[in-house]
Amino acid sequence: MPKFKPFPRLLVVAGLLLPGALWAAKPDPELLNAIRDQGFNHSQVMQTLQHLTDRIGPRLTNSPQMREANRWTLAQLKGWGLSHAHLEAYEFGRGWTYDKASIDLLSPRKTSLMAIPLAWTPATPGPVEADVIYLDAMTTAELQNYRGRLKDKVVMLDEPTDSEEPHREISKRYSAAELAEMKNFDLKAPASDAPPPQDAIAQRRRANAFNEARMAFLKEEKVRGALFRSSWDGGLIRVMGQNHRVGKTFPVPALMLGVEHYNLLARMLERGETPHIAFNVDARFHDDDVNAHNTIAEIPGTGDKPEIVMLGAHLDSWHGATGGVDNAAGVAITMEAIRILKTIGLQPRRTIRIGLWTGEEQGLLGSAAYVEQHFASRPKPSDPQERAQPRWMWSSPGWPITRLPEHELLSVYFNVDNGSGKLRGIATQGNTAARASFADWFGQVSDLSEGVISNNAKSSTDHVSFDLVGLPGFQFIQDPLDYNTRLHHTHVDSYDHAVPEDMKQAAVVLATLVYNAAIADARLPRKPMPAEPSADEKAQAKQKADKRQRTKERKALSELTTGG
Amino acid sequence: MPKFKPFPRLLVVAGLLLPGALWAAKPDPELLNAIRDQGFNHSQVMQTLQHLTDRIGPRLTNSPQMREANRWTLAQLKGWGLSHAHLEAYEFGRGWTYDKASIDLLSPRKTSLMAIPLAWTPATPGPVEADVIYLDAMTTAELQNYRGRLKDKVVMLDEPTDSEEPHREISKRYSAAELAEMKNFDLKAPASDAPPPQDAIAQRRRANAFNEARMAFLKEEKVRGALFRSSWDGGLIRVMGQNHRVGKTFPVPALMLGVEHYNLLARMLERGETPHIAFNVDARFHDDDVNAHNTIAEIPGTGDKPEIVMLGAHLDSWHGATGGVDNAAGVAITMEAIRILKTIGLQPRRTIRIGLWTGEEQGLLGSAAYVEQHFASRPKPSDPQERAQPRWMWSSPGWPITRLPEHELLSVYFNVDNGSGKLRGIATQGNTAARASFADWFGQVSDLSEGVISNNAKSSTDHVSFDLVGLPGFQFIQDPLDYNTRLHHTHVDSYDHAVPEDMKQAAVVLATLVYNAAIADARLPRKPMPAEPSADEKAQAKQKADKRQRTKERKALSELTTGG
Repeated sequence: MPKFKPFPRLLVVAGLLLPGALWAAKPDPELLNAIRDQGFNHSQVMQTLQHLTDRIGPRLTNSPQMREANRWTLAQLKGWGLSHAHLEAYEFGRGWTYDKASIDLLSPRKTSLMAIPLAWTPATPGPVEADVIYLDAMTTAELQNYRGRLKDKVVMLDEPTDSEEPHREISKRYSAAELAEMKNFDLKAPASDAPPPQDAIAQRRRANAFNEARMAFLKEEKVRGALFRSSWDGGLIRVMGQNHRVGKTFPVPALMLGVEHYNLLARMLERGETPHIAFNVDARFHDDDVNAHNTIAEIPGTGDKPEIVMLGAHLDSWHGATGGVDNAAGVAITMEAIRILKTIGLQPRRTIRIGLWTGEEQGLLGSAAYVEQHFASRPKPSDPQERAQPRWMWSSPGWPITRLPEHELLSVYFNVDNGSGKLRGIATQGNTAARASFADWFGQVSDLSEGVISNNAKSSTDHVSFDLVGLPGFQFIQDPLDYNTRLHHTHVDSYDHAVPEDMKQAAVVLATLVYNAAIADARLPRKPMPAEPSADEKAQAKQKADKRQRTKERKALSELTTGG
Repeated sequence: MPKFKPFPRLLVVAGLLLPGALWAAKPDPELLNAIRDQGFNHSQVMQTLQHLTDRIGPRLTNSPQMREANRWTLAQLKGWGLSHAHLEAYEFGRGWTYDKASIDLLSPRKTSLMAIPLAWTPATPGPVEADVIYLDAMTTAELQNYRGRLKDKVVMLDEPTDSEEPHREISKRYSAAELAEMKNFDLKAPASDAPPPQDAIAQRRRANAFNEARMAFLKEEKVRGALFRSSWDGGLIRVMGQNHRVGKTFPVPALMLGVEHYNLLARMLERGETPHIAFNVDARFHDDDVNAHNTIAEIPGTGDKPEIVMLGAHLDSWHGATGGVDNAAGVAITMEAIRILKTIGLQPRRTIRIGLWTGEEQGLLGSAAYVEQHFASRPKPSDPQERAQPRWMWSSPGWPITRLPEHELLSVYFNVDNGSGKLRGIATQGNTAARASFADWFGQVSDLSEGVISNNAKSSTDHVSFDLVGLPGFQFIQDPLDYNTRLHHTHVDSYDHAVPEDMKQAAVVLATLVYNAAIADARLPRKPMPAEPSADEKAQAKQKADKRQRTKERKALSELTTGG
């Protein structure tokens, strides 16, 4: 691996280059004022959010709207004067959009139901009528009970649920006590590159194999459609997708119903009534281009081969709403932060680069591709079947890690993907050495944010793609607001629920952190590179997994034999 | 008015008649056990609820489903062995049902929207397309700005709202502290027969006059439809109706949209885009019979002319869901309570009568008609225009009150209409003298309920029809659960959200109270009969109303002149 000479220590303040200054890492107080002035008095964050949501709409990866979002973000970033604005491609799979869908109960009584098709499921050939049947099968053997019984029917695939009695607040802000608690490192969170336990992998694989067998069965048995149940109730339609890969998409039209409407059909069947429904899904696949793209742009660093500070968010969304807080909000906040820094004339020591990722909802695909192309890669499973599974189902995260030259250059990646709530702090992902810098930087916005630093790890979004190859990638602690009660992947995740004052705060705090990272004396400290577990460690992990599996089986046996 | 001889004091226990027993009012402990055994071990309350909701569906007054609900409840009550089961008619107006409805945004981008037609609004003549326009008018003069601009358009009639950030719990149970607080009589709640302040009446009348002018304008201008905005957000479609009276129904098809979809259209208009939509409403009026009916049945009292104990709930619902907790739950609980009492063989001293009201959602019409026909009446306004308004817009509640003979016979009316939550106590409506009886009776179920007795008044449901003519009518204190966050008049008020254990508790507590009321030595004490305010009191009320109006106007003026 090539090594780069450390570049000369430069101070760049408001366009003024002061070579060799010893106080190089001190932020200019007037630039800090300028960040706030732009962020609070000349904010464009809500306009950006509104264009992405209301105007472009849902941005499912490889849909025409996602491509429009790529084009529009590119044009915006160029328009703000950013450099090297471009799109970077990676292979994704099929695109899909739906224009409209309806489902009506015709008998035993008439009423409109509310549903949204699952992404990457086919259209109906116009309006279709069918009887509904509940497919009560958890194994391929149980599927055989339904052989010959499903033709021309619509099958219900999820179990109906009992109603919840949720006592949580609809919209939540962290209390001082909760924030204080986050400072305690409880060692619970595993490193994000830790391989999942083998027993969990095996279980997922069985579920996956059953799902594939069920898809094949539905096709063979010539069903007319499938119905799924939203995972949240109260009328919220929480809808994601089926497999997006070419040749692997779901065989029949499939709709996600709200809990109340799904349960109604299930209870009718229980009572011996056969619901007869009419449904119509106007949807289509887009197979013209299997590549998806990330939008990339930057404020170039002033050195010869400058280090890099990155910020980013995922541009793609699910299709049931317009992806307001998941994650047009994060895109708007990161775009606003780099707009602020560009507008105030910053000429940073390090390059400041924004990455707007796609394919996040299908497994962090855009950021993973970017990291692989620019920073480092890990070998994928050699078995093509295993390789076709999402990364978290691979039996090994892949060893060794192969670093590219830029791996040395990335100082830090900041990710925003937890809604529109204020930034109340940051999680270090176990990178304790980064605490000092974060404390310093958050100290400059202590009137805006508590700047809680948690040593725990946050999972499931694009900073993980960086963390997986030993790069410092971080996700913020944000007020959850109604993210976890009404919005996450639901049909009401729209512009409406983003809180403007929170969005502005987030952009100003993020811009301040990025500014500091871009002028700091040194690159942010890193964790040790992830290392392959020793034979001993692997054996211990296997033992643990085996033990968990035995315990689980023993418990089930004991419940059966003692009745409880 | 004739007077009835007080009937002989009898004790009736499990079918055994003990004339003249001095301990007559003591409940039989084994009957109390039997009530619990029926209510908890042989409950039918959820089956009743399920039939009303899943099977019959929405029960809008004078819809075929409401008539089916009348027939079915009648058959059930007869089947349980109740006596004198019958329907009682009163004049209501038109029936209306809808089978299905859809609305799709076609441009500037395509997506399905979710909406439910307002009750008593006409169907479309098949699928209709139209441009959307926002009608920004609050006076008849402002309507004129739109003259000639609305033809073939769909008009948005509500103002879009900003998003809320609600911190309340989704599902709530009263805490011990909240229950304790309810015991404090704060004098805030007015008597339910107090006439509304004249300034409020005048304001309502102006709003009503404007609404009528706007309806006429929409018709003259040949609009294709109207859109309204749900009063709750988060995807909840909270939908009620327009005027149900023959000759007065809304002139054009009208849909209630969820906040997120309504706001989207409004923001498109604000940005200068014209939303083009397709919509289709399959609905119809039912004019074959303008009479609605209450379902009535009883367990006859054992005296010659026994006094009466009543329990009841409204059978009708809005049409957007199946009226699960508003108010199939109340119907199921009251039906279950009387089923329990009949099943255990009770032969009560007083007649126990159930009333399942209709027209409640349009102004307590069914219970008011029943009270007028059986107990007492108050003169209606002589002006036919005023008379056509709901009762709460009349300038006087009507004096004098004319009592019928049965007015003397009614001991108490218990109403259940606040969802499926446990009965935690009761509100006396200011009838302090009833506290002792309530405390005694709730004491018999102290393991099931705190039995909080509040002296305040509850409003807005059918016990008010009794209270208005000086009869003891009561509504319970119930755990609100998610009644006020997700269910009240929304499209998800279905079977799912009723809590079975709460429903059983409510039926057992209610049955216990009714049993006690039916065997008590004396009729429940009453408040003094409502009396017409003196000339002095009227003058004072007018002064107060005038002052409020002046204050309001002064405040508005001050805001305008000082900028806030």
